[in-house]
Amino acid sequence: MSEHCKFLLADSQVPSVWVNVLPSLRQPLDPPLHPRTRQPLKPEDLAPIFPMSLIEQEFSPQPEIDIPGEIMDIYRMWRATPLYRARRLEKALDTPAHIYYKYEGTSPAGSHKPNTAIAQAWYNHKAGVRRLATETGAGQWGSALALACTMFGMECTVYMVRCSYDQKPYRRMMMNTWGAEVFPSPSDHTEAGRRALAAAPDSPGSLGIAISEAVEDAATHSDTNYSLGSVLNHVLLHQTVIGQEAKLQMREAGEEPEVIIGCFGGGSNFGGLALPYVLDRLAGRGPRILAIEPVACPSLTRGKFEYDYGDTAKLTPLMKMYTLGHDFVPPGIHAGGLRYHGASPLLSALVAQGVIEAKAYLQLPVFDAAVQFARTEGIVPAPESAHAIRAAVDEALAARESGRSKVILFCLSGHGHFDLAAYEAYLGGKLQNGLPASAAV
Amino acid sequence: MSEHCKFLLADSQVPSVWVNVLPSLRQPLDPPLHPRTRQPLKPEDLAPIFPMSLIEQEFSPQPEIDIPGEIMDIYRMWRATPLYRARRLEKALDTPAHIYYKYEGTSPAGSHKPNTAIAQAWYNHKAGVRRLATETGAGQWGSALALACTMFGMECTVYMVRCSYDQKPYRRMMMNTWGAEVFPSPSDHTEAGRRALAAAPDSPGSLGIAISEAVEDAATHSDTNYSLGSVLNHVLLHQTVIGQEAKLQMREAGEEPEVIIGCFGGGSNFGGLALPYVLDRLAGRGPRILAIEPVACPSLTRGKFEYDYGDTAKLTPLMKMYTLGHDFVPPGIHAGGLRYHGASPLLSALVAQGVIEAKAYLQLPVFDAAVQFARTEGIVPAPESAHAIRAAVDEALAARESGRSKVILFCLSGHGHFDLAAYEAYLGGKLQNGLPASAAV
Repeated sequence: MSEHCKFLLADSQVPSVWVNVLPSLRQPLDPPLHPRTRQPLKPEDLAPIFPMSLIEQEFSPQPEIDIPGEIMDIYRMWRATPLYRARRLEKALDTPAHIYYKYEGTSPAGSHKPNTAIAQAWYNHKAGVRRLATETGAGQWGSALALACTMFGMECTVYMVRCSYDQKPYRRMMMNTWGAEVFPSPSDHTEAGRRALAAAPDSPGSLGIAISEAVEDAATHSDTNYSLGSVLNHVLLHQTVIGQEAKLQMREAGEEPEVIIGCFGGGSNFGGLALPYVLDRLAGRGPRILAIEPVACPSLTRGKFEYDYGDTAKLTPLMKMYTLGHDFVPPGIHAGGLRYHGASPLLSALVAQGVIEAKAYLQLPVFDAAVQFARTEGIVPAPESAHAIRAAVDEALAARESGRSKVILFCLSGHGHFDLAAYEAYLGGKLQNGLPASAAV
Repeated sequence: MSEHCKFLLADSQVPSVWVNVLPSLRQPLDPPLHPRTRQPLKPEDLAPIFPMSLIEQEFSPQPEIDIPGEIMDIYRMWRATPLYRARRLEKALDTPAHIYYKYEGTSPAGSHKPNTAIAQAWYNHKAGVRRLATETGAGQWGSALALACTMFGMECTVYMVRCSYDQKPYRRMMMNTWGAEVFPSPSDHTEAGRRALAAAPDSPGSLGIAISEAVEDAATHSDTNYSLGSVLNHVLLHQTVIGQEAKLQMREAGEEPEVIIGCFGGGSNFGGLALPYVLDRLAGRGPRILAIEPVACPSLTRGKFEYDYGDTAKLTPLMKMYTLGHDFVPPGIHAGGLRYHGASPLLSALVAQGVIEAKAYLQLPVFDAAVQFARTEGIVPAPESAHAIRAAVDEALAARESGRSKVILFCLSGHGHFDLAAYEAYLGGKLQNGLPASAAV
């Protein structure tokens, strides 16, 4: 056990650019469509809710975009994040495989989400925006944006899906501690919220309704913009620091990954690790790339690749993506960050082209792997991240079966400090497998 | 803001020895006394509950003790911990002072406690011990020992003060996730617990009762030892990795601290940072060293320096220390880790000799500083650690008054992810100042 198991980088090695795969795609992405006219969206259509700098990034033809110095200064508070070799897990699995993981839980908010929250807040701040509005499900994204806003002295309003608001009070308190105001959604602060409350006064809320509330808040206040934590190109762009660092650290470890694994909700942590490796794949080399989603919300493995809305109320543009339908309601699994009906259009296209593979897991085997990981590697993982662990374990077990070594790299996107009730349910034998009502798995 | 604010160390720079100040003291410590005979304790008196290796460390005349390789391997999973310069906090305070903090919250358990938990578990494992029993108040120590035991395949039993067991379920769930069994104390698993329950069936418990239960469990099971998270010499010894790293990192930053600050409960994070600097003070140089405790439990500032028991039930040896009396019951402040009636005998002696200063703060100004810190530096601190922040802020404000720069270094011993209810109470104006019933401050 005395070999090296942690790979760091010097501050000077933290990436100073974001990597953009758009200009390297075999064919350009189908454009987003205006929700009313169904015509290709013009950049200015997005100006009421996004600053022009981020709209430009969304469609940028540049292969690299410089990271502004003030963003670098904040990134460096916790970046580079560590890359670990999971020697204790390997030993427990008795596998010849080498398992590496990139750990994003060392950020103050506990996940990879601040990589884009800091960037989005900064660009909005520079554009003179005073307040950001957003939605959050389980709370990872909302707390990342609350952190980012306090770093630049901005205000932050978070519409938090009511059932999470009630069940995950610690995430809400964390946002409050950073100075954000948090409303349970549906709320009476927006027309969309009031309509939802009128229809169902006891509504537990949904991400779809919360998005509608945040977008309406931004669109109807001139000093306020909207901020999204996944799905869009500029969000994934900001996350590419993960994969760039991982490449340097794997070089430090003296190994090349043969398979890259990330959990998949909208695609932000997955894209962050995978996209720099996607560039290699598009150039005819590079590892297998594996996106892991829950059976409860199987957009990549069972959805259709077609135009759909990003929210239930059809306020967002239509995007060509893998989708279960904008009115799909997944069962209440603990990986709240993976409960999205759609998927990043960019990553969807790469799945459709066979560059990225997708696989879905049930909740119980995911928690089996999460607990084994906690008891060997020490870190209690977020339920979302545990989907990637499960897949990495299965790859390592397959390597044992075949007697062949294999180098596996996965993204451990966050810690599970606010998800311990899920662990208690699992340890107490009360966790369900998370099957969608219509599924026959 | 573009200057360096984070100082790391390479794996090869993680300290490979623990630093022992015992042989450098101006006069030897008064010996612990047997609880029944009141005669100086013999090492073999401790053998029923501690392995001989740790008993030797408790009284060691060696100035340095090598850290075994298997402990180093686990330390390196999160060590060296980062040292930060708090540039954003400095700016918010408009102070010429330079504020540095050593952040121990990056361990999987979220505090400095694993530094000794890993070491204690390993020495017990080597001695053939199958199970460790301990007590925990707020849960930081219990979760650190649960983590350590799972690393070596040992069993772990934690007696958790009942009111914390009920109020902080996430800490308990974290211990369960690492495989520990956790009993609310008083429990019916021990004679001491059953006696307490017979006297008061609804007892909220106390650290004193929980210690008695854990010690009895260890003393009555031949395969089980007891483990303590603070106060004793060998515990502080293991924590000296903190201060040794900080010294290297301050050198990297090109500055010498003029004042060292740590929060003080039993003394383990404080001693960990301070003891390497105490050696400098004993050699006639070195910084001011400041221990910060809550007014609610003011052992160093209002206690007596005399022999007292470590627990309520008088099962532990008598130790010469600052104490409020073994039956003192502090008010229920949120910094549960600082609610101990006594203090490390080693650090008590250094306070009595004037090598270390002590200061007490009320709960509200501590949370003022905690929230200011969270909103500038991003990290949500544990309420215990926030006592050190409050003192550092006051030192920085004094520097602003005097117009003179000053280099301040404090220990941020852990994060506050499981203490957010305290933040909610503070933000909602419901937090009390935490005055002891008898105090006139």
